[in-house]
Amino acid sequence: MPSFAVILVEPKYPGNVGAAARAMLNFGMRELIVVAPSFSLDNDACRTMAVHAQSVLDDARVVDTFAEAVEQVAYLAGTSAIETTSEKRHLRRALPLPFFADRVASLKGRVGIAFGREDYGLLNGEIRRCDALVHIPTADTYPSMNLSHAVAVTLYALTVDGDAALATRRADRKEKELLYEQFDRLLEVTDYPEHKREKTSVLFRRVIGRAMLSKWEYHTLMGVLKRARRR
Amino acid sequence: MPSFAVILVEPKYPGNVGAAARAMLNFGMRELIVVAPSFSLDNDACRTMAVHAQSVLDDARVVDTFAEAVEQVAYLAGTSAIETTSEKRHLRRALPLPFFADRVASLKGRVGIAFGREDYGLLNGEIRRCDALVHIPTADTYPSMNLSHAVAVTLYALTVDGDAALATRRADRKEKELLYEQFDRLLEVTDYPEHKREKTSVLFRRVIGRAMLSKWEYHTLMGVLKRARRR
Repeated sequence: MPSFAVILVEPKYPGNVGAAARAMLNFGMRELIVVAPSFSLDNDACRTMAVHAQSVLDDARVVDTFAEAVEQVAYLAGTSAIETTSEKRHLRRALPLPFFADRVASLKGRVGIAFGREDYGLLNGEIRRCDALVHIPTADTYPSMNLSHAVAVTLYALTVDGDAALATRRADRKEKELLYEQFDRLLEVTDYPEHKREKTSVLFRRVIGRAMLSKWEYHTLMGVLKRARRR
Repeated sequence: MPSFAVILVEPKYPGNVGAAARAMLNFGMRELIVVAPSFSLDNDACRTMAVHAQSVLDDARVVDTFAEAVEQVAYLAGTSAIETTSEKRHLRRALPLPFFADRVASLKGRVGIAFGREDYGLLNGEIRRCDALVHIPTADTYPSMNLSHAVAVTLYALTVDGDAALATRRADRKEKELLYEQFDRLLEVTDYPEHKREKTSVLFRRVIGRAMLSKWEYHTLMGVLKRARRR
């Protein structure tokens, strides 16, 4: 099993951060990263809602940018309330939570789970940085959950099934970045249409993110891409 | 599938009831029964936390006693934060939530899920009236969840269908075969070493198999491979 870090991006309501900290400790997690909160974590409402999870707030890492949070984890999953039905909008295509939870057990290292702002969620630029986008199956008529509820439900789903973890080592963030880079260069040298490049590049990230490559698979695919590019 | 009613027993904090109403609507449930609250459901904090679930509060049934709530349902499950290890204390022996969720689908009629007070939970006399006692698998070090979090997690578990999780259409076998073929041809035209070809080809299959490509992703990757091969 990997270890988990909860990343709250620009939360607006201190109570939600406190409640999220409590939910984390309820599910045995302690690593909280908060990106650019508009309040101090010592805020009263925040502390009150955390109840017996004060230490999670004490030890939380407050960072200025999403990029700084991303650097802390080996694998990053964003969460989204909205399930996009159009398959073409692959940037926002999300894995249902139970599906992701089933696969996450095979990851190693620190897995970051990012939760967006209470009103706007994660921005497209942030979603692009994610290896996977995860969606809690909610009712179509009212999909938007309270932030700390989304955290509680997600952490429940991630911890509830201790399925046997795969023994193979996974490709880490840096390796995946190199693979993506190689893919992008292949698009370049094959004169892949400019206006489609970014979309296709994001699509490749999604596919690789979901496949959860082992080191060995990574090295093999890198070899294939490099060779293809050189020709 | 049965229908569900959420029963909140003597809640103390109006915000929790509002947040629970929101969680209910998030998971497509509307039947709320509140036993002897110490405040009106028109309370500001209650209404604020409900956000777009005002109708759940409007239609909620407020009753004076636990017995009145029990009469409204065909099957009653109580929830408990504490998992009792002693088998002798069978009154409080609880089913793990995922286990209960798996079985609840076979029930008919209205199933009530009762959540106790924020501080004391359900009393022994109330637990005795339950057909089952359900326990959310939380960390031993801090099992006590926020009331509305317990509601959200429970309703998620009761409604999530792991099998139906993937709504998007998947690339079918034939499409995947075409993709594999294209990949093999790429290895060929780039003079990928003969003796490694089969292994790499199988590896590609594995990765694609795990990634569970959508139709759209399939077409995009096909485009990339074709183009690379042609160059």
